[in-house]
Amino acid sequence: METIAAIITAPGEAGVSIVRVSGPDALLIADRLFACAAPRPSERKSHTFAYGKIMDGEEVLDEGLLLIFKAPHSYTTEDVVEFQCHGGGTSARRVLRSCFHAGARAADAGEFTRRAFLNGRIDLVQAEAIMDLVRSHSDRSQIAALEQLEGKLSHSVDKIYDDLLAIAAQLEATLDFPEDELPESIIPTIHRNLKLVLSSVESLMATWNEGHVLRDGALVVLSGKPNVGKSTLLNTLLGHERAIVSNIAGTTRDSIEESFILEGIPMRLVDTAGLREAVDVIEQAGISRTKQYLEKADLHIHLVDLSQEADQQTFENFNDLVPGKSILVCNKTDLPRLFHVEQWPAGIPRVETAIKDEVGYNELKEALKTVLSSSIDLSARPHAVISERHRLVFVDVKAELVLLDELLSADVPDENLVLAIPSLREALMRLGEVTGREYHEDLLDEVFSTFCIGK
Amino acid sequence: METIAAIITAPGEAGVSIVRVSGPDALLIADRLFACAAPRPSERKSHTFAYGKIMDGEEVLDEGLLLIFKAPHSYTTEDVVEFQCHGGGTSARRVLRSCFHAGARAADAGEFTRRAFLNGRIDLVQAEAIMDLVRSHSDRSQIAALEQLEGKLSHSVDKIYDDLLAIAAQLEATLDFPEDELPESIIPTIHRNLKLVLSSVESLMATWNEGHVLRDGALVVLSGKPNVGKSTLLNTLLGHERAIVSNIAGTTRDSIEESFILEGIPMRLVDTAGLREAVDVIEQAGISRTKQYLEKADLHIHLVDLSQEADQQTFENFNDLVPGKSILVCNKTDLPRLFHVEQWPAGIPRVETAIKDEVGYNELKEALKTVLSSSIDLSARPHAVISERHRLVFVDVKAELVLLDELLSADVPDENLVLAIPSLREALMRLGEVTGREYHEDLLDEVFSTFCIGK
Repeated sequence: METIAAIITAPGEAGVSIVRVSGPDALLIADRLFACAAPRPSERKSHTFAYGKIMDGEEVLDEGLLLIFKAPHSYTTEDVVEFQCHGGGTSARRVLRSCFHAGARAADAGEFTRRAFLNGRIDLVQAEAIMDLVRSHSDRSQIAALEQLEGKLSHSVDKIYDDLLAIAAQLEATLDFPEDELPESIIPTIHRNLKLVLSSVESLMATWNEGHVLRDGALVVLSGKPNVGKSTLLNTLLGHERAIVSNIAGTTRDSIEESFILEGIPMRLVDTAGLREAVDVIEQAGISRTKQYLEKADLHIHLVDLSQEADQQTFENFNDLVPGKSILVCNKTDLPRLFHVEQWPAGIPRVETAIKDEVGYNELKEALKTVLSSSIDLSARPHAVISERHRLVFVDVKAELVLLDELLSADVPDENLVLAIPSLREALMRLGEVTGREYHEDLLDEVFSTFCIGK
Repeated sequence: METIAAIITAPGEAGVSIVRVSGPDALLIADRLFACAAPRPSERKSHTFAYGKIMDGEEVLDEGLLLIFKAPHSYTTEDVVEFQCHGGGTSARRVLRSCFHAGARAADAGEFTRRAFLNGRIDLVQAEAIMDLVRSHSDRSQIAALEQLEGKLSHSVDKIYDDLLAIAAQLEATLDFPEDELPESIIPTIHRNLKLVLSSVESLMATWNEGHVLRDGALVVLSGKPNVGKSTLLNTLLGHERAIVSNIAGTTRDSIEESFILEGIPMRLVDTAGLREAVDVIEQAGISRTKQYLEKADLHIHLVDLSQEADQQTFENFNDLVPGKSILVCNKTDLPRLFHVEQWPAGIPRVETAIKDEVGYNELKEALKTVLSSSIDLSARPHAVISERHRLVFVDVKAELVLLDELLSADVPDENLVLAIPSLREALMRLGEVTGREYHEDLLDEVFSTFCIGK
């Protein structure tokens, strides 16, 4: 096993930065680079730290701390040392370079966590939770990730796996009976158990929408004719709610999106006016991009201007509104009202506002929360929820379980039992990929490639 | 003394982030927020760390480490605890908020270091070195800052202070003699000692230029007519040398500057073409800004196009070239040569290039290094150098010493002795401000206001 090293704090001006070294030579490297009062690093106790000089030969690289973690009591379960240097990057880079000279190699993205997984300290769902924690922008997302790290989601998945394994055992046992001696109750029992597992799978799959919103942020699309007040609404939302300012490396977000937190939920706000400007070459392209965004939207806010008369376009726009997902904002109540419609779109909540004076802002927020609560139970504690990777696995697992259900529902289920077993095996294998009971290099590469360096 | 807390790692996606708490309640706060195996944090030994859950009441905020530093063995010399949380910001923010609930208040910018100074662990020059370390972008700047942190510069300043104090004592002793009984040798001895101090002050002041280049970067201005190859040269430099990509909060740099490292020296490159575009309203404004930049430049690279004939403008531009600071790049040697001059500007090194093919690039780099070495001895080890704040103090100190020199050089120096003493006192007081022997709140506010939060 090679010894790996990386800077594990974010770049930028700050008090401290940390270089982590993990692997069989970690303590050796510390002995070589860290000058402190006796005893030397490798002879110190685990879970202690020392103050000293980080040296490369005669050259002082920095002054700082050395933290010592002896196997298996570390992040990776290997011997680990952490050099706590001055912040700002240059000190940490010099120390890292000397770790390489002393025999470590650069850690790949996610490699510390990958080792924690390979060494059995955490499963794959917990590994993913660590990156969700790091990427979380709101308390709610952070708490959900923390629950996942603590094993709540792993436990649910393991329960399904174990139940399915029990069913497989029962199913295989039936093969030992001569065909006509199979006890009558066996197949119905297996079938009942299978239906329970199927319903557990469906419950977990239902958490995906919340997971998607917590991880990626709810996509909120603002639409409406020019000058109805879209930009004013956007600025009001950004001004009143906690804006997410950081431009995080590694996340590719459309540049026209603005992000903020509403009720602990990260929101990604797209102004379709901005959308049109961004592709101003052909107006048509902007409109078709708007449609694409509307299809992906978790929440669609459409604005109309009450001081203007409704026209043909007004009603065409109404057709884009989807009950349970859209809100109609009737803006400019402060001006004489010229807007009249015979029929408002059915099932779409309406809020009257004068956004520039913040009239109706609280009512709008309430309406937003109502729509959001169709994805997330805002009154419940945040909880571990599945990710897109998990969902894709569960789609396959569910397909196998539905097939099994059909096989067992047949008139002569006995004859289908042999067909059922490969299907069950496939479901188990796929399910094992969620927590990493079953893994292959490609799966690990897929999971850990989304990690950042130093995690 | 209040207990203070701040996030001391940079924001952004990363493995870990740290919340530092310093002050009399630090251990109490740790007991309240950190759940770990017995013993509880306050009963643990200094310089140990524990793994556990960071909790606010029943709510888990994060899993992580707690580092314990008991007074006086900490950064501030107070009791300090550091919560090492998951990176990315949200976890650290939740932990920080709970530290505030538990009784800490938010640390001001530089407040940890200010306490280290007030508690006598470091002097003001060392405190400034810490921020120089954090801000350093090149190895050379980092090593110079490290020397300063280790006390090299403080030692030089202290030596001057002590010598000056001895002179003051000698001077005051002369007042005890009846006027006509003053031993003949006393005044010349004092005078000789004073001249030695003056020369030490001048030596330190001479390090300012290097300090300025190491801290702020050498300002390199590119000039030349349109299409001579300025952008190509800029891109070549940025492509071949290590570019400084980070946009550091707190440093206000002109947006048209590009930064990179050459021979361990941070360089700030300004293309005067960009300068003109940035203020394109009136061409004249651009030109006058170019002149301003040329005056501030540490290094001026002027390009001419050998494939074009020289004209009136060519010779006007030559007038801007300053020996020892400027380099003339004769570009486009690959094209037929139409450029001819009877007389090249005197004392200006010339390099012939075809930059787009990288012909002459190494020669250009050599020329750059030669000019740079007038500010910095590139063959010498980097060493502690004074900052702009120090220089301003030394300017005043030197003025007083020059005045003293004049007083003591007078025909009847005895009569001037009474006049000399206030001047010497003033010099001592000002000098004391460098290392902080003498300080007042305004001085500390000035020094620490340039620090970042969490340092």
